[in-house]
Amino acid sequence: MSLPVIRIAEAGKYEGQDVELRGWLYNKRSSGKLHFLQVRDGSAIIQAVLFKGDVTPELFERADKLGQETSLIVRGTVKADRRSALGFELGVKDVQVIQEARDYPITPKEHGVAYLMEHRHLWLRSSRQHVILRVRHTIEKAIRDFFDQDGFTLVDAPIFTPAACEGTSTLFEVPYFDMGKAYLTQSGQLYMEAAAMAFGKAYCFGPTFRAEKSKTRRHLTEFWMVEPEVAFMSLEEDMVLAERFISFIVQRVLEKHEKELVDVLERDVSKLKNVVPPFPRITYTEAIEYLQKAGHPAKWGDDFGGDEETVLANQFDRPVIVHRYPAEMKAFYFRHDPANPQVALGMDVLAPEGYGEIIGGGERESDMATLEDRIQKHNLPMDAFKWYLDLRRYGTVPHAGFGLGVERTVAWVCGLHHVRETIPFARMMERITP
Amino acid sequence: MSLPVIRIAEAGKYEGQDVELRGWLYNKRSSGKLHFLQVRDGSAIIQAVLFKGDVTPELFERADKLGQETSLIVRGTVKADRRSALGFELGVKDVQVIQEARDYPITPKEHGVAYLMEHRHLWLRSSRQHVILRVRHTIEKAIRDFFDQDGFTLVDAPIFTPAACEGTSTLFEVPYFDMGKAYLTQSGQLYMEAAAMAFGKAYCFGPTFRAEKSKTRRHLTEFWMVEPEVAFMSLEEDMVLAERFISFIVQRVLEKHEKELVDVLERDVSKLKNVVPPFPRITYTEAIEYLQKAGHPAKWGDDFGGDEETVLANQFDRPVIVHRYPAEMKAFYFRHDPANPQVALGMDVLAPEGYGEIIGGGERESDMATLEDRIQKHNLPMDAFKWYLDLRRYGTVPHAGFGLGVERTVAWVCGLHHVRETIPFARMMERITP
Repeated sequence: MSLPVIRIAEAGKYEGQDVELRGWLYNKRSSGKLHFLQVRDGSAIIQAVLFKGDVTPELFERADKLGQETSLIVRGTVKADRRSALGFELGVKDVQVIQEARDYPITPKEHGVAYLMEHRHLWLRSSRQHVILRVRHTIEKAIRDFFDQDGFTLVDAPIFTPAACEGTSTLFEVPYFDMGKAYLTQSGQLYMEAAAMAFGKAYCFGPTFRAEKSKTRRHLTEFWMVEPEVAFMSLEEDMVLAERFISFIVQRVLEKHEKELVDVLERDVSKLKNVVPPFPRITYTEAIEYLQKAGHPAKWGDDFGGDEETVLANQFDRPVIVHRYPAEMKAFYFRHDPANPQVALGMDVLAPEGYGEIIGGGERESDMATLEDRIQKHNLPMDAFKWYLDLRRYGTVPHAGFGLGVERTVAWVCGLHHVRETIPFARMMERITP
Repeated sequence: MSLPVIRIAEAGKYEGQDVELRGWLYNKRSSGKLHFLQVRDGSAIIQAVLFKGDVTPELFERADKLGQETSLIVRGTVKADRRSALGFELGVKDVQVIQEARDYPITPKEHGVAYLMEHRHLWLRSSRQHVILRVRHTIEKAIRDFFDQDGFTLVDAPIFTPAACEGTSTLFEVPYFDMGKAYLTQSGQLYMEAAAMAFGKAYCFGPTFRAEKSKTRRHLTEFWMVEPEVAFMSLEEDMVLAERFISFIVQRVLEKHEKELVDVLERDVSKLKNVVPPFPRITYTEAIEYLQKAGHPAKWGDDFGGDEETVLANQFDRPVIVHRYPAEMKAFYFRHDPANPQVALGMDVLAPEGYGEIIGGGERESDMATLEDRIQKHNLPMDAFKWYLDLRRYGTVPHAGFGLGVERTVAWVCGLHHVRETIPFARMMERITP
């Protein structure tokens, strides 16, 4: 009998028909003459119902004993079932067991996080991880769609970078043939500045690395970042781009995953629905004043920690853009505000609900002499920046951009406390397995 | 005067209107009362025509002396011009110079490749590199669109991997905190097998690394690879997926870039138009027989070099799939052919015109005992594969997949001799700059 082999997510197209499903046993329960097998195939979960009268006694008996994650092929009739999340169930006619799984290490009971992380290759199969990683997929796709539709050219930044531009303390080193050491990129920004001069609008999107000796819930050693850079763009336009971009991502996730976010992750999606332009904008100086009024011992020149970011963000019902930070706090390449050289034309976007900074960016210094001067003042090796200075030597133009971290964005959108669940195989100071 | 600020590529929408363009001087020529400025902005190039009678004498005089890559803002009227590639030119009313560039290092004359690679941050601005990197963008987008539309979930594979699974000779090592060494990934396949068991259909797409001491025109130390993996997929279905996939990519490039491929890269696109399913399929054994008849000293058990691949591919007008290689030649995880255990259920896709292997893949061994046996025979550390064996222990199913290298695909589609131009910032044994 040659039945259509279908994926569970498309079962609705086959209502009333006999089909074949291939997947794994996710869960099961029995009630007398009925076994209810929850079968997953990676696209969705369906309830496959075995009625004692419909199958052989051997099969009915065996089905009761199948272990979680047994691989199987199920044949039967697709039927509407309004009670289920899928809307359909399968009236089983036959089950073919591929492999009986025994003692699957991840059971519906509670496991510790370290145990689950060590079993990440299996943990990926659970419903909760499924939703998170599908949201990640949607976010990554939305990121690319946004920039592709907006006339940006994808210009992959290199992972191996030559010089330790801003100190080596948080860089991973790699012995590189006879050339000494290469360093794993922390940001593609400098390369995107070259790309913006070539393509006008460019972005990169790939893994970046930070060898920070930090074990907080916001740190991974390997994380994905998207970095757009645009020629002739000002800080004000950069902020508009950032708010359009974030809104696009969040609304796309809601379109595709609202139900799962609510049902599986218990996310309060009303907070995500607010994420539409315009975002509130406050200067760093205003932010400090606010913190002081709120009783925080912050003073002008201090960096914000997680607590300060949360206090600032809690004033608003959507992300807030903080701009014009003290120039001293920012990297050498930021343009300073002509109206007030004490501050740099940089901006951060802070997510609501305590999820912290998800975007950092701003306008870059485009004047060569100023930039040379900064490189000297920061005691950076001029030679390593020769190519970067070429961008100011040959047809320099104002330009700006930003970077968005994927994992923090996924954590915020999904409402997760820790970033370790936001990436398929998290890498942290104490973890490089599986 | 507030004119619409437009990108050159969309000039056609503004015919007859005054607009503002922002970009760089790509080239120029003069003829008495006219200066013809080729202005690029990263989206396209437009000819901006200065008529002596239309602008101030100072501007007309200055325009004649502007150096290549001078950054400027040009205002004028968009006019149809059938002779130009764009179809439009600009009748200039005003030019505002942002920075006069002098002695731009890359002139229209010939430069050596080493010189150009050292100036890659500027070389990106040239028309030829523009076309290649736009084709790369289109290929990368087509790759994602293909899998996203086909129900695959993007599951990013980790870059840091723990064990040196198949010998360390071509792996880059990274000192990793107190955990000893991590290695940069050569392939996400093993992780995608875990992902396929979770999502049914999964793919990863990111940079991969190979520390090969090789300086050939086909080698980069850092290159991008896409790796789909599908549960319940056979070798035959894997070949169908591969040919559908490659055809999709090539036809998408032709849709978007046929003219540029012909005009700028002088690509014979008739050879690309043939790239539609079905692709010819030959077994490795048939391939050896063919080579022997063609006078090559190949014998059963030999690997194919570039010469052999070219001879094999030249028989066909589209890519050819070579399958069922000697099991001894293939990695431990390949399933052996039940009908002939001497051969593995692997396949390679060879591009036409001497571009060599662009896809390698096949069916994976799904039986745990067989796989354990292989790991032992290959003297691989069983402990490092414990998690991988879990995939066979808990609900194993037949599965298959493949990997496609982006740079070789770009080289083939663009007709490039060397892969170094196929990636924005190439990394090779002797190059990690700029």
